[in-house]
Amino acid sequence: MIAATPDPPYTAVIFTSVRRGGDEDGYGELASAMEALVAEQPGYLGHESARDALGITVSYWRSEADARAWKQVAAHLAAQQRGREDLYAAYRVRVARVEREYGSDTRDGGDQHH
Amino acid sequence: MIAATPDPPYTAVIFTSVRRGGDEDGYGELASAMEALVAEQPGYLGHESARDALGITVSYWRSEADARAWKQVAAHLAAQQRGREDLYAAYRVRVARVEREYGSDTRDGGDQHH
Repeated sequence: MIAATPDPPYTAVIFTSVRRGGDEDGYGELASAMEALVAEQPGYLGHESARDALGITVSYWRSEADARAWKQVAAHLAAQQRGREDLYAAYRVRVARVEREYGSDTRDGGDQHH
Repeated sequence: MIAATPDPPYTAVIFTSVRRGGDEDGYGELASAMEALVAEQPGYLGHESARDALGITVSYWRSEADARAWKQVAAHLAAQQRGREDLYAAYRVRVARVEREYGSDTRDGGDQHH
């Protein structure tokens, strides 16, 4: 569940959101569809997601151009519009360049990386 | 709860973790103490946090030097050691430079920012 990203540099897109109430099923379906679709995009390196009162999803990309291309994928554009109009009370997207990283050697409690 | 960060550029530290089970009280106390302490640090701009199976905390800093200084604060060093030894099955820290951001105008459902 911790993304197995390569050595920096690469791009991180930090998406932070506060949901409106209601429509749990619709939200879950849309989120699942986007999770499947994002993994097929060129330059996709992985993503991490957690939600309690706040939701944070960080997706990792080979380059900022790859992240921008995902933003423009048609099904994703529709999901973004739905998010703005129906799902999120507030959200913020931050596009960042990862310059260094470190951590425990085991990610997902399995693979060995450095 | 969505951090009211200034215009980019600034630094984001993305901390992703998988907890070990047990010691909920000890974890909660340590997390609360660190949340109070981090907010007092020079260059601190805000942070966002969410946890379900995975935990993600993103802290925002005026500069990478400010983020590095926080890493070296004594009480935080002790907390990091405790995290490595007792609390986390796996974790990853990524230091990134935020280059652009956008989102809804309302953060925390309240303040108006652009």
